[in-house]
Amino acid sequence: MKRFGDLAPSLRTIMTPGPVEVDPRVLRAMSFPILGQFDPEFTAIMNETMEMLRELFQTKNKWAFPVDGTSRSGIEAVLTGLIEPGDKVLIPIYGRFGYLLQEIAQRCGAEVVTITKPWGSVFEPAEVIEALDLHQPDLLAIVHGETSTGRVQPLAEIGKACRQRDILIAVDAVATIGGVPVETDAWCLDAVIGGAQKCLSVPSGMAPVTYNERVERKLLARKRVEAGLQSGTEVPDENRRPIIQSNYLDLSQLQDYWGPQRLNHHTEMTSMLYALREGLRLVLEEGLEERFARHRLHEKALVAGLAAMGLDFYGDESCKLTVVTCIAIPEGIDGESVRSMLLDRFGIEIASSFGPLKGKIWRIGTMGFSCNQKNVLHLLGALEAVLIRHGHSLPAGAALQAALEIYEGG
Amino acid sequence: MKRFGDLAPSLRTIMTPGPVEVDPRVLRAMSFPILGQFDPEFTAIMNETMEMLRELFQTKNKWAFPVDGTSRSGIEAVLTGLIEPGDKVLIPIYGRFGYLLQEIAQRCGAEVVTITKPWGSVFEPAEVIEALDLHQPDLLAIVHGETSTGRVQPLAEIGKACRQRDILIAVDAVATIGGVPVETDAWCLDAVIGGAQKCLSVPSGMAPVTYNERVERKLLARKRVEAGLQSGTEVPDENRRPIIQSNYLDLSQLQDYWGPQRLNHHTEMTSMLYALREGLRLVLEEGLEERFARHRLHEKALVAGLAAMGLDFYGDESCKLTVVTCIAIPEGIDGESVRSMLLDRFGIEIASSFGPLKGKIWRIGTMGFSCNQKNVLHLLGALEAVLIRHGHSLPAGAALQAALEIYEGG
Repeated sequence: MKRFGDLAPSLRTIMTPGPVEVDPRVLRAMSFPILGQFDPEFTAIMNETMEMLRELFQTKNKWAFPVDGTSRSGIEAVLTGLIEPGDKVLIPIYGRFGYLLQEIAQRCGAEVVTITKPWGSVFEPAEVIEALDLHQPDLLAIVHGETSTGRVQPLAEIGKACRQRDILIAVDAVATIGGVPVETDAWCLDAVIGGAQKCLSVPSGMAPVTYNERVERKLLARKRVEAGLQSGTEVPDENRRPIIQSNYLDLSQLQDYWGPQRLNHHTEMTSMLYALREGLRLVLEEGLEERFARHRLHEKALVAGLAAMGLDFYGDESCKLTVVTCIAIPEGIDGESVRSMLLDRFGIEIASSFGPLKGKIWRIGTMGFSCNQKNVLHLLGALEAVLIRHGHSLPAGAALQAALEIYEGG
Repeated sequence: MKRFGDLAPSLRTIMTPGPVEVDPRVLRAMSFPILGQFDPEFTAIMNETMEMLRELFQTKNKWAFPVDGTSRSGIEAVLTGLIEPGDKVLIPIYGRFGYLLQEIAQRCGAEVVTITKPWGSVFEPAEVIEALDLHQPDLLAIVHGETSTGRVQPLAEIGKACRQRDILIAVDAVATIGGVPVETDAWCLDAVIGGAQKCLSVPSGMAPVTYNERVERKLLARKRVEAGLQSGTEVPDENRRPIIQSNYLDLSQLQDYWGPQRLNHHTEMTSMLYALREGLRLVLEEGLEERFARHRLHEKALVAGLAAMGLDFYGDESCKLTVVTCIAIPEGIDGESVRSMLLDRFGIEIASSFGPLKGKIWRIGTMGFSCNQKNVLHLLGALEAVLIRHGHSLPAGAALQAALEIYEGG
């Protein structure tokens, strides 16, 4: 039976906004034999992971654990737990992933109010605060780092304004966690969702979330113990708020599984948890501040190189997201042909974008393990060669010199 | 920073109904560097996985792919896609996981009708067919292998009866897929959900599903393209059936991601997919029939050994699930103390059970990679020693002799 060959993926330099390359230590962690889900060694690993996640999210929250799914499973878990049908949800939209928040909130039965900014920019905090006062929503849901446009939305003022008004705020920090500061407690964020396969550099498959007791109160009011596990002492349903519409993503049940009660829900993703734990160890060993500085350094070198090549950057510079750099595809160049040649000849992957930006910009990620000097220099040299190959005129050799200037302390 | 040590899980003999031990080839597959999600090498891996899943499910269905989550994510994806609010769903319940189907269906807004059997037995097909005629549901949702009680529900007649009546049938085959026959097409099953961490012996994290065009028609009538990805040519919402209430588990969007359109949804779980692909290769290399026969052989040896030890089996023998063997905890023995000693002294894990069976039975799995002669013999010897240690009187030495008789062809 040789119809399906041995797995033999090519080695890639992955410079997209995720998924990105994975540290060999994390890859190795996944190759360990598994433990049973209630094995004391495994529940200890679950507890250690929660402890490390609190540091990552910069929070003293009791609850910080991964939802077992890709990033949007964490977003949906938070929104479906917080939104009861008819709740008013304010969503500021400045790129694709704002629309995703809208879509999920609508499916949860929310009355959604959106405010929008042209793609490539973000909101002034005052604009969002004004909308809070105008619409008085139950929940504000907002994207921190928008990978579709490469922008970052400042959240400190918005978070505090929500707290003052007793409005819950849920933040999609999928693209930013582990790469740029996400200060859950200092910014008064009630629920935050991080991503695994971006700045944490763990393979896609888990969505770390954290939430505080304001969120937990809301969840507990909607909680049901699973029918097949009930002990007969539960409070009757009629005294509860409407049930959470997903069982798989029900945070009120998930926290009983992650808490000391260990009430069976799903079977925890053993190997993915090994990977997440190792990825978190790497983050904490490096140090959050040092990690953020590393991301800034390589962004600086990349941007210097691209500028020296004469390429135009997309979007408002004042709100550029450190870990995603967007460049306009030059006039007359076929963006997909450039991406294919980069992949086929140089083994480098960069990204295109979505919706209105499809075919107009390239997006280059400098995230996590992929964010290093070798990758940045490799990419700049390759992109220059491929652009020349596509007939684009540019100052040959300038990009790498400009980037080296940065690395040599220029 | 040495607060969190190197990952160093103990090696366990895992004889539970899942998660079970993982073949080193599958563990190795997860340690390969990752590819980007739209890398042609990766989409080829996605396609190969679909092809192998069709063989596993014994179907010619177009759609067979993993949902990115643990088993119940696949169940919820199927139910939330098939159930519109107010739809009538019939659920025959004969153990814990029937209640899970009920709970998920209720959260989808179904009018749920249940019929129940005492735990430890299953339904006569005629009983279910009578209920179909009495209640005339839109959907029948039923568990194939109930791990909580170790029973298997025959489905061939029930599936055909549903087809004759134009009622959809969705089957939870989480515990059975890859261990006992699941004949999707021959039994006229419209949607089937398999499990990764049981007889497939892949770590928990993916839920393979398959469904036919009857299901697809229902999904397409409810489909929406994600707001941030719309091209402006979509059919207006008002002409559609009610939207699927989950975005993450929306099969109508997932099939656009798994299909040639490759419309971005989540970021596929790279390393988990590597694992699933390798796990499927192992299944097909062994051969489905040979694999089923292996599961029967080791069950026979285990049962012979336990019987020789004088232990009582739980449940109706005529519907025993090959891959889970349930035994009554003997009078006066503390079941959890026995389980702890098995784990701490012998590195063997067996399971307790849920709800009304908690504290009353042990459940021993013989699934996938864990289902082998070494494990069965190791377990029987260890269980005998631990029971003697707990003051239980039994014919010492008989269990291993009885099992060896089976392996020697007795």
